[in-house]
Amino acid sequence: MERYRIVFSGSGGQGVVTASIILAEAAALHEGLNAVQSQSYGPEARGGATRADVIISDRAIRFPKVNQPNVLICLTQEAYNKYSGTIRPGGLLLTDSHFVKLERKVDARQLGLGMYKKVMDEIGKPVVFNICVLGAMIGLTHVVSTESIMKVLGGKIPPGFLEMNQKALEIGLQLAEGSPLKSK
Amino acid sequence: MERYRIVFSGSGGQGVVTASIILAEAAALHEGLNAVQSQSYGPEARGGATRADVIISDRAIRFPKVNQPNVLICLTQEAYNKYSGTIRPGGLLLTDSHFVKLERKVDARQLGLGMYKKVMDEIGKPVVFNICVLGAMIGLTHVVSTESIMKVLGGKIPPGFLEMNQKALEIGLQLAEGSPLKSK
Repeated sequence: MERYRIVFSGSGGQGVVTASIILAEAAALHEGLNAVQSQSYGPEARGGATRADVIISDRAIRFPKVNQPNVLICLTQEAYNKYSGTIRPGGLLLTDSHFVKLERKVDARQLGLGMYKKVMDEIGKPVVFNICVLGAMIGLTHVVSTESIMKVLGGKIPPGFLEMNQKALEIGLQLAEGSPLKSK
Repeated sequence: MERYRIVFSGSGGQGVVTASIILAEAAALHEGLNAVQSQSYGPEARGGATRADVIISDRAIRFPKVNQPNVLICLTQEAYNKYSGTIRPGGLLLTDSHFVKLERKVDARQLGLGMYKKVMDEIGKPVVFNICVLGAMIGLTHVVSTESIMKVLGGKIPPGFLEMNQKALEIGLQLAEGSPLKSK
């Protein structure tokens, strides 16, 4: 398989770290892959910026940080401005159209989806925005299956909240499905 | 400051990853330090083993993985058998006496505390065991303050559950305080 070098970036409270851990666990525990997940907290973290890295591969992963992602998710304009230049040629750059204007040219497929708006309209709870983003991301890349994500969520989330998370995941999948970048 | 190279190890469900993230956030967001937190998921993860690394420093952190921890926490016998040989000379090896027998000689201060038992006796919820471990660890090392941990918990945990977490943290601090390894 292609090695996935994924960066989730945004601001603290958007659930970027949690989304990246759910993805890494889905890959490793339910898809038989190797995964490494990490985050660095420096001065930017104190300003509210967050970045989490995930590498997924069927082979051993030696260096755990991502320098050039092939999948980059930016959930704030600041994150987009900072990281969009790092994407690998031909990679996928996913943003949320409520938070980010795609104002740069990058040598990658850029896609802004209305994830936040749809989560707020249909669920009304910003806390599951990160799960919707995860749904869109796996809908576009198929790096792991929806079932594997749901298994991880089932082990982490109290039963009463699982349905809301599943709905957020499905919103993300539907947005990916309807997008011009839907991969084959 | 001394650079802290910390490894939390145990089994899935013991909250090792969460504890390590809370520690890293406390250091970076509330103590002005740099922190990197990571975990690798390989074949061991599918067997239920978990390991999370945290590096904390007042200087830049280049390589995010810990090879030789100076603080090693082992919450299962398997983790102890696997990692106890990696500790730096003079380091601190903290285990839980319900889960681990200290049956090896290591060139480090070894300490088994009855954290799990005390959490179950006094709170009755295994879900806060990891917070108790974190309390014992900061009680022994002073790598971050109790207040910084509480600030992170306050931002993550619903108000109704915060008190239980605070109590678990205090149990850990008390166990550290009463231990023969209490640092100056």
